[in-house]
Amino acid sequence: MPLTPEQTAEIEAARANPRPTLRAVSEGMEAHLYRAHPVLDHGFIRVIDYMGDDSAIVQAARVSYGAGTKHVQNDEGLIRYLMRHWHSTPFEMCEIKLHVKLPVFVARQWIRHRTANVNEYSARYSILDREFYIPEPAQLAAQSTVNNQGRGEVLTGEESARVLAMLKSDAAQMYDHYEAMLSQDGQQGLARELARMNLPMNIYTQWYWKTDLHNLFHFLRLRADPHAQYEIRVYAEAIAACVRDWVPLAFGAFEDYRMGGVTLSSKAIAVLKRRLAGEAVTQEASGMSKGEWREFVEVWG
Amino acid sequence: MPLTPEQTAEIEAARANPRPTLRAVSEGMEAHLYRAHPVLDHGFIRVIDYMGDDSAIVQAARVSYGAGTKHVQNDEGLIRYLMRHWHSTPFEMCEIKLHVKLPVFVARQWIRHRTANVNEYSARYSILDREFYIPEPAQLAAQSTVNNQGRGEVLTGEESARVLAMLKSDAAQMYDHYEAMLSQDGQQGLARELARMNLPMNIYTQWYWKTDLHNLFHFLRLRADPHAQYEIRVYAEAIAACVRDWVPLAFGAFEDYRMGGVTLSSKAIAVLKRRLAGEAVTQEASGMSKGEWREFVEVWG
Amino acid sequence: MPLTPEQTAEIEAARANPRPTLRAVSEGMEAHLYRAHPVLDHGFIRVIDYMGDDSAIVQAARVSYGAGTKHVQNDEGLIRYLMRHWHSTPFEMCEIKLHVKLPVFVARQWIRHRTANVNEYSARYSILDREFYIPEPAQLAAQSTVNNQGRGEVLTGEESARVLAMLKSDAAQMYDHYEAMLSQDGQQGLARELARMNLPMNIYTQWYWKTDLHNLFHFLRLRADPHAQYEIRVYAEAIAACVRDWVPLAFGAFEDYRMGGVTLSSKAIAVLKRRLAGEAVTQEASGMSKGEWREFVEVWG
Amino acid sequence: MPLTPEQTAEIEAARANPRPTLRAVSEGMEAHLYRAHPVLDHGFIRVIDYMGDDSAIVQAARVSYGAGTKHVQNDEGLIRYLMRHWHSTPFEMCEIKLHVKLPVFVARQWIRHRTANVNEYSARYSILDREFYIPEPAQLAAQSTVNNQGRGEVLTGEESARVLAMLKSDAAQMYDHYEAMLSQDGQQGLARELARMNLPMNIYTQWYWKTDLHNLFHFLRLRADPHAQYEIRVYAEAIAACVRDWVPLAFGAFEDYRMGGVTLSSKAIAVLKRRLAGEAVTQEASGMSKGEWREFVEVWG
Repeated sequence: MPLTPEQTAEIEAARANPRPTLRAVSEGMEAHLYRAHPVLDHGFIRVIDYMGDDSAIVQAARVSYGAGTKHVQNDEGLIRYLMRHWHSTPFEMCEIKLHVKLPVFVARQWIRHRTANVNEYSARYSILDREFYIPEPAQLAAQSTVNNQGRGEVLTGEESARVLAMLKSDAAQMYDHYEAMLSQDGQQGLARELARMNLPMNIYTQWYWKTDLHNLFHFLRLRADPHAQYEIRVYAEAIAACVRDWVPLAFGAFEDYRMGGVTLSSKAIAVLKRRLAGEAVTQEASGMSKGEWREFVEVWG
Repeated sequence: MPLTPEQTAEIEAARANPRPTLRAVSEGMEAHLYRAHPVLDHGFIRVIDYMGDDSAIVQAARVSYGAGTKHVQNDEGLIRYLMRHWHSTPFEMCEIKLHVKLPVFVARQWIRHRTANVNEYSARYSILDREFYIPEPAQLAAQSTVNNQGRGEVLTGEESARVLAMLKSDAAQMYDHYEAMLSQDGQQGLARELARMNLPMNIYTQWYWKTDLHNLFHFLRLRADPHAQYEIRVYAEAIAACVRDWVPLAFGAFEDYRMGGVTLSSKAIAVLKRRLAGEAVTQEASGMSKGEWREFVEVWG
Repeated sequence: MPLTPEQTAEIEAARANPRPTLRAVSEGMEAHLYRAHPVLDHGFIRVIDYMGDDSAIVQAARVSYGAGTKHVQNDEGLIRYLMRHWHSTPFEMCEIKLHVKLPVFVARQWIRHRTANVNEYSARYSILDREFYIPEPAQLAAQSTVNNQGRGEVLTGEESARVLAMLKSDAAQMYDHYEAMLSQDGQQGLARELARMNLPMNIYTQWYWKTDLHNLFHFLRLRADPHAQYEIRVYAEAIAACVRDWVPLAFGAFEDYRMGGVTLSSKAIAVLKRRLAGEAVTQEASGMSKGEWREFVEVWG
Repeated sequence: MPLTPEQTAEIEAARANPRPTLRAVSEGMEAHLYRAHPVLDHGFIRVIDYMGDDSAIVQAARVSYGAGTKHVQNDEGLIRYLMRHWHSTPFEMCEIKLHVKLPVFVARQWIRHRTANVNEYSARYSILDREFYIPEPAQLAAQSTVNNQGRGEVLTGEESARVLAMLKSDAAQMYDHYEAMLSQDGQQGLARELARMNLPMNIYTQWYWKTDLHNLFHFLRLRADPHAQYEIRVYAEAIAACVRDWVPLAFGAFEDYRMGGVTLSSKAIAVLKRRLAGEAVTQEASGMSKGEWREFVEVWG
């Protein structure tokens, strides 16, 4: 994402003038503010604003639990306790606002997370830019043969080139036609709200997106997961890198309990207990379905 | 939307077997259940399920207000009172579930209404059908010259034909390429989650969408409004026609207070009072901006 | 909760007249409709309406995944897959509406579940009844000495009697004063919205409460849990018994994956793997805090 | 609310150390941060944190509308346009976090606004303080004779004194019993989660409450309204005074369009038009119900 000189200047200007505040300040997050972190070929995420830090989570929890939290020795212990026991409301006391530039097909997945505030660039009001996501060859993968919603092997040689050429020329042609339909040069010019329907879903859009830390963690758990589509995962990873600097204690607990954790069913617990007692348990004896067993074995061998 | 014989048979089968229930039943809505109401060239809305009726709204209100509602003479009076005073919770006690087939660019507007449940057809898992929205010539309008997000005059002759031809051939070509990229005939076949990015936004998708009556009214107020884009307005109108048969009293109140109502600012109230007192008030003397005054005059002359 | 003869008659009348519907019908739930399931000394839950059944969950999932779900052999397997992978949206396609009578201090916990619709009896409009929750002696427990938010031993003899007598006489006196303040007999009579402030939090209120199955499962997981306060847990259990009859497949998956499941942190996974490999791991070597270790040992020994 | 010296010292310490930030800063709001604004006899509101300012609203709107907003001359005009046309999403880009101390019966009204984050002091974990709301004599009003949920005349002499005495002695007695039940002096001591049920609803609780500006405006419109109960209205007014200093342009638009505005039904519009044309219209000829007509005449004479 080559920023225009104007954009770079605007970001630098916004970063040049710190002002005093009495609010909670996260030094780690201040370093990210306004800077565009490139994602994919033309996209980015930028932190526009934030509210709270690790201590704001602790503070909210102490309001709830009053004297009951005094025996927890330190902030990290309390934050880990909250995360472990799914006490989500203190995490909701932190808020983040991002500026994101992303392909429309990624935006359509992203918007399914409903507990967030969004202002998207409107193609009814304004004209979209000529920017399309064209995958790197390393990302051009075949349909997975084992997973209906996954990717398999990377496409090889000629097929890869054919696909890339198609994506590029189609995007260019669609945008040419978009402009031709909008043009008021010697004709009336089609309404923007209609012309946009001819654009492919790899065109870039942008939005301001604001959510609280609890819902952001939920988003990251699903979208930074290896099963998420690559094109949204890289956004989740870029956001996660900022969150780590913003609320390091909460992020550490999130990594341990959510990203690195697993949920066991009562059947899985029973199998593990039998194994711990020295018994060898087969799928047939586990009470699990084949699919469930396969997922179980992936973790436990 | 020509239903396939299979779909028609499926709908008729679902409609052929009424079963007894003790729940509130709306006769008006039963007549709509499962039937596809065509919208645009390939879209539809179908009511899949509903909960409650006018009397469920009244019942919930009477739980809240207890003996306090006894003096309201009848259900209609109570429902109108609730609507007039923005007592929204009793309307939330009714719920509707729809099956909707709609172009992607319409779906992107629609999804902005966040207080709803959605299951959308996934183009990661499955292959989209070759169906695109191609506007009727009467809907091919120029960009409005007075409103940034509106349509002006209908395109004439050649320009209209040019636009239609472009939309049709581009859609066909993009879908051909979509199929070509997916094909596993002599090649690996691109993953579905990638191939979909080449499709234009007038392709049809479908979803199940479920919301409560209060939020549905909010949706209808914004989307059945004359300022809404035609392509979503026709969906809102098709839904409104079902809602009228489902909860006729609530819908009547909605039409009177919301669809047919206006909100006046304190400045607008002051101007109307001066006019009622016989004074002629100009924009300059009104305290309103030019835009506000123009909207005021549209209603009041 | 001794229902008045009028209430019993009303319920029987509502149950006497089944009407035909084309909607999804759950026989198991029809048997519960309108019937009051007693909870605590004066409370109850009643199912007033519902939308959908197990097959509605499957239907919504198949819309999402299209052909991708065909390889799942049956409805139960698909529902278990959805639950295991936290695909929550198909469960949101079912909805339930309850009438609940409950003490105010329970209502204050309950209302923290925000994704629900509520109509509560208003003590601004109407006068509350003289009904208070007085615990059974078996529920009069001492403060836990190990858990800040739990109960320990049941109170014995005299102390138990003293507490019961206090609760009873205080409730009676507060209600007498409530009536005395409201009375317009020889005085103006205090406004209801003010008089209510003198009532204790074990007085009963009632509301209509409506939510979707996904959010209901979340409520049940937290509130039917052994760590939940007894007085809300009995409501959750009464609701759970209805849900089991309503959507038996979904409820079975919920029991296996949520109620009977556990979440393991990455540290806990590592410890279990070392144990499975025959190693004895101490708390110190586990990387877990003492609290975390204690909880781990409770499950795994 | 007499702050303890410790609390005052804590607030002053928090206010003594401004730190640099690159975020949007509202000077008007900085002046409020952490300070306790007294409400009722022991309550308060304190702004703990905020995100955004008037220019953040404009910035978000310009992302949405792109070049389409360039013709709006200034920020105030754009903000008023957004408010007038119910474009609520840009207002959602501002967020506020408050610390509130309030009587339980007020908290029960407040919590009905669901789109907010809350951490409340837990009486399961901790012991509530001996603080009760006792109204000023000027607020001890009789039940309204015309409005089921309102107040009428202020109570006079002896009745007022009787009510006050009752509220005071009941609160004191209930709290004495609360302490007696909790006491572990020579007895086991009842669990806190049970003892709390004996407390009256004028006891004070406290919470952290966080919401966005759009939802806050909705709260203020309902709760700063003259029809709201006095005891919640004073909280809304104290918050409104902070919001005015935080986002003066948005607050001005809110006052003009929401607080000072009215909504007219289609019937009311028709009556006003006939009046403007010189016709005298009676209730009978208006098509309005008596209640609706009474409310209409209150505004328009």
